[in-house]
Amino acid sequence: MTAALADFDAAAAADLLERLRRKAPRVHCITNAVAQHFTANVLLALGAVPSMTIAPEEVASFAAGADALLVNLGTLDDTRLTAIPVAVKAARAAGRPFVLDPVFVNRSPVRCSHARELLALSPTVLRANRDELAALFPGQEPLEVLAGTPVTLAMTGAEDLVAGPGGSVRLGNGHPLLARVTATGCAGGAVIAAFLSVCDDPVRAAASALTVFNIAGEIAAARARGPGSLVPELLDALYLIDEVRIAERLKRL
Amino acid sequence: MTAALADFDAAAAADLLERLRRKAPRVHCITNAVAQHFTANVLLALGAVPSMTIAPEEVASFAAGADALLVNLGTLDDTRLTAIPVAVKAARAAGRPFVLDPVFVNRSPVRCSHARELLALSPTVLRANRDELAALFPGQEPLEVLAGTPVTLAMTGAEDLVAGPGGSVRLGNGHPLLARVTATGCAGGAVIAAFLSVCDDPVRAAASALTVFNIAGEIAAARARGPGSLVPELLDALYLIDEVRIAERLKRL
Amino acid sequence: MTAALADFDAAAAADLLERLRRKAPRVHCITNAVAQHFTANVLLALGAVPSMTIAPEEVASFAAGADALLVNLGTLDDTRLTAIPVAVKAARAAGRPFVLDPVFVNRSPVRCSHARELLALSPTVLRANRDELAALFPGQEPLEVLAGTPVTLAMTGAEDLVAGPGGSVRLGNGHPLLARVTATGCAGGAVIAAFLSVCDDPVRAAASALTVFNIAGEIAAARARGPGSLVPELLDALYLIDEVRIAERLKRL
Repeated sequence: MTAALADFDAAAAADLLERLRRKAPRVHCITNAVAQHFTANVLLALGAVPSMTIAPEEVASFAAGADALLVNLGTLDDTRLTAIPVAVKAARAAGRPFVLDPVFVNRSPVRCSHARELLALSPTVLRANRDELAALFPGQEPLEVLAGTPVTLAMTGAEDLVAGPGGSVRLGNGHPLLARVTATGCAGGAVIAAFLSVCDDPVRAAASALTVFNIAGEIAAARARGPGSLVPELLDALYLIDEVRIAERLKRL
Repeated sequence: MTAALADFDAAAAADLLERLRRKAPRVHCITNAVAQHFTANVLLALGAVPSMTIAPEEVASFAAGADALLVNLGTLDDTRLTAIPVAVKAARAAGRPFVLDPVFVNRSPVRCSHARELLALSPTVLRANRDELAALFPGQEPLEVLAGTPVTLAMTGAEDLVAGPGGSVRLGNGHPLLARVTATGCAGGAVIAAFLSVCDDPVRAAASALTVFNIAGEIAAARARGPGSLVPELLDALYLIDEVRIAERLKRL
Repeated sequence: MTAALADFDAAAAADLLERLRRKAPRVHCITNAVAQHFTANVLLALGAVPSMTIAPEEVASFAAGADALLVNLGTLDDTRLTAIPVAVKAARAAGRPFVLDPVFVNRSPVRCSHARELLALSPTVLRANRDELAALFPGQEPLEVLAGTPVTLAMTGAEDLVAGPGGSVRLGNGHPLLARVTATGCAGGAVIAAFLSVCDDPVRAAASALTVFNIAGEIAAARARGPGSLVPELLDALYLIDEVRIAERLKRL
């Protein structure tokens, strides 16, 4: 594994967050039907601007003009299957970063084979959990497979690991209640895409994104009675989070 | 009508709820576009795990591995029409229960004829209101049509009636504010599917599901200012509900 | 521009709101995937009834029986493209009003050309912001293009302008936090459709709709901590708003 990123701390994450809020980047999301609405609200609360069309005839215009692209493989129907390569090509041609989130490839062989084709297009960041990585790279160690490629891995779970050409970061923030709300992981992928649009180092961008999102989740969980009140609290926390709150809670492992 | 279920009470409903939370069953939902996000959050708050893809090429893998299947006929487009029989066949082959929710068949003759085809596949539970049943069985008494079939009817309304081979239960819980939030009925269908995965008697399972969902709705309505605050309150109530709260409010008629 | 509407005030808006709540009109919405769930909840909170199917084979039944139709061009996929003319024709044949919301036509030339075809079908109200109008009518003044047509324009922004055959109204309500929640503008289009179903004058109906929606937004923003808590507060405010609260805040410019 590459060396731990020396200078990743609360100030670094807060600096990227501040740049993001000033830039208000547009993130084009081809994401699953369940996550679209919540993902849009997460991006808006954070200070980014979502666009969400999956129509193949429109998606090139939207992706080419966006600051970053998210491709999430949930609810992978024919329209999405047609739109994804069009959007990736348009984003790449415009020099934009792209995040691949192969959700539930472990539950559908068809989806897993689509994910492998997209991996060959070198996403800037691959966001996945251990089960999804085991399905993508059966019998192999994901970090070894990706070593030497330009792809940065953001492996999420109870602990998060971000590793890529620029180094690696292990993080321990988050809260179990986040798993009781649908699409929190999917929205996290969109947050990574938003941070990529303000930072050339994908490791630093992804680590900052996970830190901001997961600490907002902790702040929200401390105020919520259950998963219902967690949703408005999480969006408010993303809107209100700042360097002080990040510094209070950052757990770099 | 079959005889009233002798031993359905708060303890019985709470026992199934406890089994559900221990098992964390996965419920595959082919449901309408408006209900997908809320239904997923209802299942997660309750302790179940949703999956939601409607892509025909993926849905067999998802339905076969799930613990129960919900088929809701809202927003019935070509993708859903193709996916539904594939999913039902896969769930049946794996011995999984399946709930049919023929929403708004009274507003669309095409949808009504699809619903009749699905009824012929003997859903474990048919969830419908009086208007939908009148469209499905014009001029007939639904309970008489279904008598002698394996289908359990969960007829919802101001009062709910659950009736099937195992007996019948009349229930009086719920709150009018629930009708001012979209997809509460649709999410209730998913809750029935989740309870079916932990109980072989569909009448007991559906009665427990409606009881838990509607009492959570009452608890939420007592705390809410309107339909907006009802949503987080309902999800929190589903997360927090227990035998004591069920016993305080259960209205068996 | 046509003369300012003489008698538009809080009492006039509250009168239409009261009629709407008594009638509980059904508004059929062909709207984008991101906005469907929130739009349905906005209509329900207000006192209207949403229907949302976009399936081409069903949409004529749904639109013909509805009291008003909303056509929103977000996430414009093949299913929506096929459904829209079918729904418009059915609504027109039944004498129902129809709102066109050409969201983001400025970001997609294909979508812009579809919007122009729909404009030729004379929507009762065209709801758009300045960027969308500039894309629809390049180099032209929208009010001049629409003068002499039956189309009423509802131009939204920091200030709103409603203008049509019946006169014009300038309005100054709203709150910046509304822009940090997805689909508030789209839901506003559905609210205009709901008001059209209880008033023959599209200018008065659209002005009342924007007034009620934007004042509810101000009330919600005053109570919210951020965009997350704004959502339940907005729905509660739409449910609770009355003439007193409208009169306290109405800003006619």
